[in-house]
Amino acid sequence: MVQETPSTKRDHDIAEAFGRPEQGWRRSLYAVMFETGTSAGRRFDQLLFVVILASLAVVMADSVAFLSQRLGGLFGPLEWAFTVLFTIEYVLRLLCVRRPLRYAMSFYGVVDLLAFLPTYAALLTPSLAFLIGIRVLRLLRIFRVFKLRLFTEEYLMMARALRASSRKIMVFLSVVLLIVLVMGTVMYVVEGPRYGFTSIPVGVYWAISTIATVGFGDITPHTALGRLIASVMMLLGWGILAVPTGIVTMEMTLAESARRRAAARTCQVCLTPGQDHDANYCKHCGAELAGQGREA
Amino acid sequence: MVQETPSTKRDHDIAEAFGRPEQGWRRSLYAVMFETGTSAGRRFDQLLFVVILASLAVVMADSVAFLSQRLGGLFGPLEWAFTVLFTIEYVLRLLCVRRPLRYAMSFYGVVDLLAFLPTYAALLTPSLAFLIGIRVLRLLRIFRVFKLRLFTEEYLMMARALRASSRKIMVFLSVVLLIVLVMGTVMYVVEGPRYGFTSIPVGVYWAISTIATVGFGDITPHTALGRLIASVMMLLGWGILAVPTGIVTMEMTLAESARRRAAARTCQVCLTPGQDHDANYCKHCGAELAGQGREA
Amino acid sequence: MVQETPSTKRDHDIAEAFGRPEQGWRRSLYAVMFETGTSAGRRFDQLLFVVILASLAVVMADSVAFLSQRLGGLFGPLEWAFTVLFTIEYVLRLLCVRRPLRYAMSFYGVVDLLAFLPTYAALLTPSLAFLIGIRVLRLLRIFRVFKLRLFTEEYLMMARALRASSRKIMVFLSVVLLIVLVMGTVMYVVEGPRYGFTSIPVGVYWAISTIATVGFGDITPHTALGRLIASVMMLLGWGILAVPTGIVTMEMTLAESARRRAAARTCQVCLTPGQDHDANYCKHCGAELAGQGREA
Amino acid sequence: MVQETPSTKRDHDIAEAFGRPEQGWRRSLYAVMFETGTSAGRRFDQLLFVVILASLAVVMADSVAFLSQRLGGLFGPLEWAFTVLFTIEYVLRLLCVRRPLRYAMSFYGVVDLLAFLPTYAALLTPSLAFLIGIRVLRLLRIFRVFKLRLFTEEYLMMARALRASSRKIMVFLSVVLLIVLVMGTVMYVVEGPRYGFTSIPVGVYWAISTIATVGFGDITPHTALGRLIASVMMLLGWGILAVPTGIVTMEMTLAESARRRAAARTCQVCLTPGQDHDANYCKHCGAELAGQGREA
Repeated sequence: MVQETPSTKRDHDIAEAFGRPEQGWRRSLYAVMFETGTSAGRRFDQLLFVVILASLAVVMADSVAFLSQRLGGLFGPLEWAFTVLFTIEYVLRLLCVRRPLRYAMSFYGVVDLLAFLPTYAALLTPSLAFLIGIRVLRLLRIFRVFKLRLFTEEYLMMARALRASSRKIMVFLSVVLLIVLVMGTVMYVVEGPRYGFTSIPVGVYWAISTIATVGFGDITPHTALGRLIASVMMLLGWGILAVPTGIVTMEMTLAESARRRAAARTCQVCLTPGQDHDANYCKHCGAELAGQGREA
Repeated sequence: MVQETPSTKRDHDIAEAFGRPEQGWRRSLYAVMFETGTSAGRRFDQLLFVVILASLAVVMADSVAFLSQRLGGLFGPLEWAFTVLFTIEYVLRLLCVRRPLRYAMSFYGVVDLLAFLPTYAALLTPSLAFLIGIRVLRLLRIFRVFKLRLFTEEYLMMARALRASSRKIMVFLSVVLLIVLVMGTVMYVVEGPRYGFTSIPVGVYWAISTIATVGFGDITPHTALGRLIASVMMLLGWGILAVPTGIVTMEMTLAESARRRAAARTCQVCLTPGQDHDANYCKHCGAELAGQGREA
Repeated sequence: MVQETPSTKRDHDIAEAFGRPEQGWRRSLYAVMFETGTSAGRRFDQLLFVVILASLAVVMADSVAFLSQRLGGLFGPLEWAFTVLFTIEYVLRLLCVRRPLRYAMSFYGVVDLLAFLPTYAALLTPSLAFLIGIRVLRLLRIFRVFKLRLFTEEYLMMARALRASSRKIMVFLSVVLLIVLVMGTVMYVVEGPRYGFTSIPVGVYWAISTIATVGFGDITPHTALGRLIASVMMLLGWGILAVPTGIVTMEMTLAESARRRAAARTCQVCLTPGQDHDANYCKHCGAELAGQGREA
Repeated sequence: MVQETPSTKRDHDIAEAFGRPEQGWRRSLYAVMFETGTSAGRRFDQLLFVVILASLAVVMADSVAFLSQRLGGLFGPLEWAFTVLFTIEYVLRLLCVRRPLRYAMSFYGVVDLLAFLPTYAALLTPSLAFLIGIRVLRLLRIFRVFKLRLFTEEYLMMARALRASSRKIMVFLSVVLLIVLVMGTVMYVVEGPRYGFTSIPVGVYWAISTIATVGFGDITPHTALGRLIASVMMLLGWGILAVPTGIVTMEMTLAESARRRAAARTCQVCLTPGQDHDANYCKHCGAELAGQGREA
């Protein structure tokens, strides 16, 4: 049920946007390619998920010099197979919706196009070979499929908590941004280009990597004053960065606590809510609670 | 309302401090430059915000060797334009308050002065060119404007939580300071100058970067004993640093929890909000509460 | 009691799986080697714990060049002593269960075998010397003993909290995985092999070490765009990584809060514990609760 | 009051341990040197605090080559002044207690002795000059004074929360120790001495610095398998390290929540506790609450 509702809603949204054919083979094709409420659509999504992952694995493996030298002869044909598959998929998607242009201009329409176009472009015009990198955008196609699988209770609950705290996190981020701007500039003035702080933006980059406790170590303070400032930043930074954790934890705890309380029971006589799940009698008026018994 | 109260209060504080003119063009000018409750003042703040950001962007871009070589001819005139603008603003601010000296001596008065003075100083005495770096203090001017925009519910709530936990965080920081002093000294004795621990202050700097989990890696232990001590520090350090997160989360959760409970139920007779969800009678006037229990 | 229940349960599970002999010396041996409810079994576990630790200490010390050169003559015989001991233990375990094959094929059966087999293999076939490394799997044997000692209330409570939040953490990890896949690829395209981003998998490795705030610094962005992307990742990454802390804290707080509330008040009539602090009547039997309210 | 109780208790403990003289100049001296409930004792503690800090500042400054070359002539006499002061203090402490040997053998007795002994030793036997490093143990003397100043409500509350969660944290640390032992050994086998993993202990040191998100970067994986293992460690490690934060936050939240609830009010008629601090009437029975009114 939980799984069904969002995907059905999404099916409805897509039908509104791109136009669902009324009947015929286009209706059947549409059901497979765009709908997730049907078992055929779900199986197609699973197949697509596997194909995208495989094509990404090839792109990733191809980027490893060691593997591309050894298996280069295998990667080429595989890449072409995926390209042809994605082309066919794209054409079929265009065919089965009633407003193909609208689909082609949509976010996922463009992503679907970019999944195979660069390979053709590199073939026709060798000077466009650098476009091959764009193929990694196929990753984004996973989100389409992934989105459905994630619409579980857990995902929705976490998303709600993050959205509820988004304003607080924005305020927090703006304060942090001001701090790293000031500190990055101060470090640029104090340390200077001798020790890698070659410009103010570089100083800000260093300040962010320090306050987020990442600390790459590619740029580090070397003067006594610079190290003192960095020390203060690190200590206070930790206190500051406790804030987002606090915000998220608070939202989650209060939301979950309310949800659990709401799931508790209410007396039918005095309407006192919050009866324990293992109570036989109302804790307020002593009336017997209906349909109960130990729930383990 | 929430937005209004603090800015109006701030307007009042400034009027007290610098003296608000009673009438005439100075009164109008004052409203624009110092007051945030009026729409003219708000628009002036927005404009100032943009100009400061632009001037900072130029200062930052000018610090990047790559950009300053290419666009140096553009940055010079822009810098002078900003300097003149800030000079005019400063003079106008001096003119429209009744106690100009008091404004000139205030924190933002000095910051406003430092926003343009270095550029003139560098022009008159080339040997003072290093003062140019002071221009970055313009950043501080953003706080003046920013402060107003941040006086939202979220900001106040977070500031309250931080202030409520400030004593606990101070106690925590003093314990951490003692630990890093001891550990920094121990590492200086154990590792010595061979491996970068050239003095006790450097050891303390290393201890802070380790306990705050930043770990730059510019100085690292190389002896077996030093690595053992570092390992213990890292493991225990994590436990210790869980404390500020715990403090902030606790304060936020309890404050927000109380706020939500207070916002929950309201008496229909005396309109006192914040009746407990299990109350039968209003805690303020004693009237019976209707339809009890439901908290939704 | 708390200590007893799980170990007894585990004894029962093992008896089911491997077959407990009914009587004779095999029954006595079985009690010592497999049962933890008896004092002999517990003492055997403690002895085994010490022997495993000692054998591990020798393996670890042997890996340190400095120590192995000096004490190499000592480590050899010690290693053989441990190997013989573990062999005897393995044979005895095989002898005293009723289904020895089932034990030999079980997880701990294989681990027990691997604890001594590599030493013999290296002796017979010198070319198999690299197998010596497998000896470190003896570490896993500690879990068998350790598991029992950990079955305290604290461990169970933490394990429950982690299990309760495991689905949420899985959802969270899958989102993080998608993000690091995208960001690792982007950085590979932006920075390229010049600055260490030699392949997409390496980019993903960098993205993980950055988003987890580890920041080794072996690979770091050097281009302006790469540093900008890294900065955004670090700032947003912190927000994202506040989520697992939030999840674990929430589960723990709610679980412990419920446990403490349940332990609070007890009905004097039916002895049901966990009456709410504001209850007038026992929720189980409906008897009036005396001296209400005090929860201390 | 809060300040008084613990220090008085500590005074009592010390009187028990070392024997408080009954009268005479030794009684007065004892009051100054050991008691914190008297104003003379408190002022002595403050003076001692300043002297220790000053002596530490000299030790730290002396370790900086730059400063010791320039101000070396100043540091020598200062160091001797502190040494003589600490000697006098130690002798006086010995004189004014009734069981001087017991004091001399106590923890702080030894620390007090080590605060000045190394300087004399280095003077008498130049070959003992390396003992000078022991002077930094003077840091520990600060704890004696510091302890008193920290016995505030905040410190006690945090210490209680940490102590309440100490068993959970011990369980957690033992699990983490097992993990880093296994992972450190695995990385030693996978990466080997080529990439800095020269022994199993070094591998464990690396595993700790990685799982604690410190990531010095002095040793990093270079093989594909090593990087894969490191990635999994970092991602799961973050989840694992959310646990201590969760434990501390939980203990603090529940303790503070209980404290605040206990501080709420109880109706004198129906004994319902937890009346809001601004309630005029009992929320349960409607009886007027005594001695109230708005508490702001």
